[in-house]
Amino acid sequence: MRMAELSAESGVPVATVKYYLREGLLPPGARTSPNQARYSAAHVQRLRLIKALTEVGGLTLASVGAVLRAIDEHETPHQTMGVVQQELAGPAPKVSDEAAGWATGLLQDLARRHGWQWHEPGTGEPGNNEVANLVAALATAKELGHERLAERLDEYVRLALRVAEVDVEVVVGLTSVDKIIEVGLIATVLGDRIFAGLRHLAQEQLSRELLGGPPA
Amino acid sequence: MRMAELSAESGVPVATVKYYLREGLLPPGARTSPNQARYSAAHVQRLRLIKALTEVGGLTLASVGAVLRAIDEHETPHQTMGVVQQELAGPAPKVSDEAAGWATGLLQDLARRHGWQWHEPGTGEPGNNEVANLVAALATAKELGHERLAERLDEYVRLALRVAEVDVEVVVGLTSVDKIIEVGLIATVLGDRIFAGLRHLAQEQLSRELLGGPPA
Repeated sequence: MRMAELSAESGVPVATVKYYLREGLLPPGARTSPNQARYSAAHVQRLRLIKALTEVGGLTLASVGAVLRAIDEHETPHQTMGVVQQELAGPAPKVSDEAAGWATGLLQDLARRHGWQWHEPGTGEPGNNEVANLVAALATAKELGHERLAERLDEYVRLALRVAEVDVEVVVGLTSVDKIIEVGLIATVLGDRIFAGLRHLAQEQLSRELLGGPPA
Repeated sequence: MRMAELSAESGVPVATVKYYLREGLLPPGARTSPNQARYSAAHVQRLRLIKALTEVGGLTLASVGAVLRAIDEHETPHQTMGVVQQELAGPAPKVSDEAAGWATGLLQDLARRHGWQWHEPGTGEPGNNEVANLVAALATAKELGHERLAERLDEYVRLALRVAEVDVEVVVGLTSVDKIIEVGLIATVLGDRIFAGLRHLAQEQLSRELLGGPPA
């Protein structure tokens, strides 16, 4: 298909498609003349993926580039998902050393109890931004005087494991490595958004009953 | 305390504190002379809250303003949490009408099965951005050809309800309305970040075993 169809099919404006081509986020089409090229269904899918990562996942184009490079370089699914999670987490906010030390201790105990491999924050390892962001979120709760949240951490871990089991089941039925990576990516990016949305709706139903909302 | 101490105590630079005062995000201190004012522990807590909402929650300052106004106007905890969730969700990304119709049908069925009150997207009701974003995330999965995610939606709903029960238990033990709102706010903003982080770590452990990561 030509550029105009590619744009119509993917819902991405022509100027944006051209920008993605220049930035290398979208591979070039097959040249048919000096200023014309043909694009395929793979281009449409790639554009939809970029849209999902930026608009639903909230990733910057730089992060999208890192994720797409990891996919294109055919790293293992495990490694690719590491890059995805690293980019989704982004750099962690600054917190006080005292609160960070408290939160790191909590998470180390948790990792030990659940037999999880522990990524020391700040070493540049994959999974590292993730841990650094977890430390920052827990430390922020402590700085605000709400370390009580941490008392329920074991229950959150148990539920997070159940959610991750469903996530992984969605992925492992697939046979193609490309599909595994794509679905894993989508399950993570869209899955976070979907689960947070369901959790908020559930909180609203429960708080309506318990905290006295207006009658339904 | 004076401005310099307020800045040191909260970890927020003086120029930023002054900006928040001008924007009305932080209430003025008690004047002690024409160009001096005294600030209290409540000011420190408010600054930490703004920091948590922007740096961990990723809210814009406009959204933070909306949340703080809802708190200061002493709406009921239920209504305040509605504003918080509305601002956290933000406006929903655009998706095709066909995919949006499919996702809306799915969510209506789900709401019926679980006895949840359903907020029609686009009516400006609280909880509305949340539903519109859920619709957009599911519709995006469909556009990408991954409607399979939706097959497991009932399991995600069941787990989201369990997580929300823990969230609400953290809050209902409290007696002061101000505390309920503050903890609810923190549980939502930090809670989303913490749960997503735990889920990713759990996914990583499971995918290491199932998808063949490097040996630990």
